[in-house]
Amino acid sequence: VTTIPASEGWTLRQKIRNDGWASQTSGQAYGHVQGNVAILPADLADDFLRFCLRNPKPCPVLAVSDRGNPLLSTLGRDVDIRTDVPRYRIWEAGRLVGEPLDIRDLWRDDLVTFVLGCSFSFEQALAEAGIEMRHWTQGCNVPMFLTSQQTVAAGPFAGPLVVSMRPMTPANAVKAVQITSRFNAVHGAPVHIGKPEMLGIRDLQRPDFGEPVEIRDDELPVFWACGVTPQAVVMSARPPLCITHAPGHMLVTDLLNATLSVG
Amino acid sequence: VTTIPASEGWTLRQKIRNDGWASQTSGQAYGHVQGNVAILPADLADDFLRFCLRNPKPCPVLAVSDRGNPLLSTLGRDVDIRTDVPRYRIWEAGRLVGEPLDIRDLWRDDLVTFVLGCSFSFEQALAEAGIEMRHWTQGCNVPMFLTSQQTVAAGPFAGPLVVSMRPMTPANAVKAVQITSRFNAVHGAPVHIGKPEMLGIRDLQRPDFGEPVEIRDDELPVFWACGVTPQAVVMSARPPLCITHAPGHMLVTDLLNATLSVG
Repeated sequence: VTTIPASEGWTLRQKIRNDGWASQTSGQAYGHVQGNVAILPADLADDFLRFCLRNPKPCPVLAVSDRGNPLLSTLGRDVDIRTDVPRYRIWEAGRLVGEPLDIRDLWRDDLVTFVLGCSFSFEQALAEAGIEMRHWTQGCNVPMFLTSQQTVAAGPFAGPLVVSMRPMTPANAVKAVQITSRFNAVHGAPVHIGKPEMLGIRDLQRPDFGEPVEIRDDELPVFWACGVTPQAVVMSARPPLCITHAPGHMLVTDLLNATLSVG
Repeated sequence: VTTIPASEGWTLRQKIRNDGWASQTSGQAYGHVQGNVAILPADLADDFLRFCLRNPKPCPVLAVSDRGNPLLSTLGRDVDIRTDVPRYRIWEAGRLVGEPLDIRDLWRDDLVTFVLGCSFSFEQALAEAGIEMRHWTQGCNVPMFLTSQQTVAAGPFAGPLVVSMRPMTPANAVKAVQITSRFNAVHGAPVHIGKPEMLGIRDLQRPDFGEPVEIRDDELPVFWACGVTPQAVVMSARPPLCITHAPGHMLVTDLLNATLSVG
């Protein structure tokens, strides 16, 4: 066991801000919490926060900024949302219009930033407990599926729950429930085990997002609420402006995954 | 919510001891821990204790008596194992030779009593969380199955793991893992979910003990290590003398199920 340097998140953010570092963040700053980012005009932010609180499993809120304030002091030292995400996506009325490396020139004093937990945190805990993450082994993105289950709407925000799927043996599925139950801040316990048809999923080899992974005869598919849910919901609400991280290019914080575990 | 009278276990034991009360204890002294009983000669007790410690999920030890001492002070006020079980079974070399209502005349100063946790404790917690116990609804015993998984042997004690099965929806299976993980003293988390063939179980409608229950299309079979495991193991070891409770006629203690929950 090695102690994780507390400054690694900060060091990576400095490279992103100053040196044009613009890669995917998976596996970077090991042990640090990474987050999904959504930035919205204030007149939509209230509804979006209500949406998140009504759907805590797909939308675990790690931080909400003050209106117009680009700093997120609860997530670490000098976290500036205008510069510290490796790559952004700019959406206007639901259409992708740009993928800049910073958003200083787009910042407005009516913008509110949301940072939502992501599955990287609990995947680390699962892997450390000896549970194979098949999509890691296969070197691909986790398979994700639109379900027949609707989220609880708030204002213009509504849509289906999106889940990620990880195959594992029944004994590991029990372990995975125990471990991820302690990670409420990052999706928590699985929403479903074993019967994809009950979620309206027809073919596990044809995910709606990410890539398919092998499921062996002695394995069950285990499903978690996924951070793609709020992204899909925001896109379908077509806000005049929305800024998100580019897929896989997360905000790296100073928080440690281990500190998100309760009990 | 009503407070459970601490004296209910004691009151029931008094009836059993003095008034010939000799029924099954399921549902009696609500909220109190009930235990499986096995009484063995001291020269076998060491091996049996080792067996229990090597197989904690099927054999959760709630109490072990001192040699020759019929009192179990850690389980409650004035608990006397010679009189306080509603009905006993006497086994000689693995053969059932009697079903007396007390064992005062059989007591010897080389006997050691084991009290092992039973699933009644966690079933109460599951039912209180809104999870239907199908065998309660159907008014029958929980279905139990011999598995292809061997216990870890100790001395003459060896044999297959026996599991009990409760059907429930995938969402409730997740909840059931969370709840029973807190009940390590009474079998703990499930040992298996969803794939009976991996345990060597061919037909869920033909249990080896207990009775079959309905499993619906939207349900998974969830399997827990079962207290019948040590009973079967002791029988097959054919000790010269062994005294157990009669099925369903458990030792009722002063402990509360709620206090067995950790976290």
